[in-house]
Amino acid sequence: MFREVGFEKTTMRAIAAEAGVSVGNAYYYFASKDELVQELYRQVQDDHAALAAQAIAEQTAAGKTDLASRLKATLHAGLDVMAPYHRFGADFIATAIRPASAVNPFSADSLQARAESLSIFRTAVEGSKPQVPKKLRADLPELLWLGYMGITLFWVYDASEGQRRTRRLVDGAAPLIARGLQLARVPGVGKIIDEVLDLSRSVRK
Amino acid sequence: MFREVGFEKTTMRAIAAEAGVSVGNAYYYFASKDELVQELYRQVQDDHAALAAQAIAEQTAAGKTDLASRLKATLHAGLDVMAPYHRFGADFIATAIRPASAVNPFSADSLQARAESLSIFRTAVEGSKPQVPKKLRADLPELLWLGYMGITLFWVYDASEGQRRTRRLVDGAAPLIARGLQLARVPGVGKIIDEVLDLSRSVRK
Repeated sequence: MFREVGFEKTTMRAIAAEAGVSVGNAYYYFASKDELVQELYRQVQDDHAALAAQAIAEQTAAGKTDLASRLKATLHAGLDVMAPYHRFGADFIATAIRPASAVNPFSADSLQARAESLSIFRTAVEGSKPQVPKKLRADLPELLWLGYMGITLFWVYDASEGQRRTRRLVDGAAPLIARGLQLARVPGVGKIIDEVLDLSRSVRK
Repeated sequence: MFREVGFEKTTMRAIAAEAGVSVGNAYYYFASKDELVQELYRQVQDDHAALAAQAIAEQTAAGKTDLASRLKATLHAGLDVMAPYHRFGADFIATAIRPASAVNPFSADSLQARAESLSIFRTAVEGSKPQVPKKLRADLPELLWLGYMGITLFWVYDASEGQRRTRRLVDGAAPLIARGLQLARVPGVGKIIDEVLDLSRSVRK
């Protein structure tokens, strides 16, 4: 219903009618529309994890084990899973961006969905050959996940047909990220990366 | 009123009462609450431009003309100007993030405010000595402005007293950005930066 009639028109009453249950019954399972959105968010993560694992397996079977290929497969899988919800994306983000919202990706209520999404990016990083420079390996999944939040925002704003601008962004960014990370081995660059990681750890407290 | 009673409770009716005009009269000047928010957004940009210019002049008088000092002064000036509105930040962002909103920073309606904000960052970049590597100079103001949008989002989520985590982020990030840009002169890094700029230009179309 979110996909078909939009966020505003999908009331708890309309959902109950569609599901053939009483409104009271619907509220027994979901205290609010926010909780329903949360459930949808979790499902999208599940689907993303499954599709990304499959896409990475295909890459591996084709002999592509580098980070760029794995990352590209992972990011496109995310876009594939979100594609049917593009119309609903702006509403979802306007809801999710409030710090107090249960569906805010940084909130306590989103812990499970966030952990799952992080593990998708951990899989992409950990299995890659050549390996990611050691000092980046622990922090990278979370940084990639943050980048993926940025890509999602770009996708919401992307009015091009089939969101092809976002697809191009993924195709271009994945190899650049992988090559950029290899620069961590250049002394001057490595030092700055260390300080960026220190800063990103320190401002979370 | 946005600051004092919050976004939801600040209705057009309440604003008209506070201003001592009729509701009809208030609507004559502002067609909606969104237009009022837009006006506030423009005012915040004006104040930011004035305060940043003053802070940069002080840095220059103290002999600090490097990009890190100018950027730090500019970013802290932005936080100073936004500080009284922190409570209202989440509401503003939830409104502004909708692609169709007049106050969306990327929208046509925000053209003036965006141009002004961009010129604040252009001033920070253009007067700096040593100069920014030439190939970055044209694109940098917009990239810094995008980064500032990210800092603003971080600030909205920052529940620490006086948003001191955001202050620390600015203190740490400004010198790292300036040093990172100097790396553009390292051959391997320069090539990747060229490709990042190409990609960022190509995905906008």
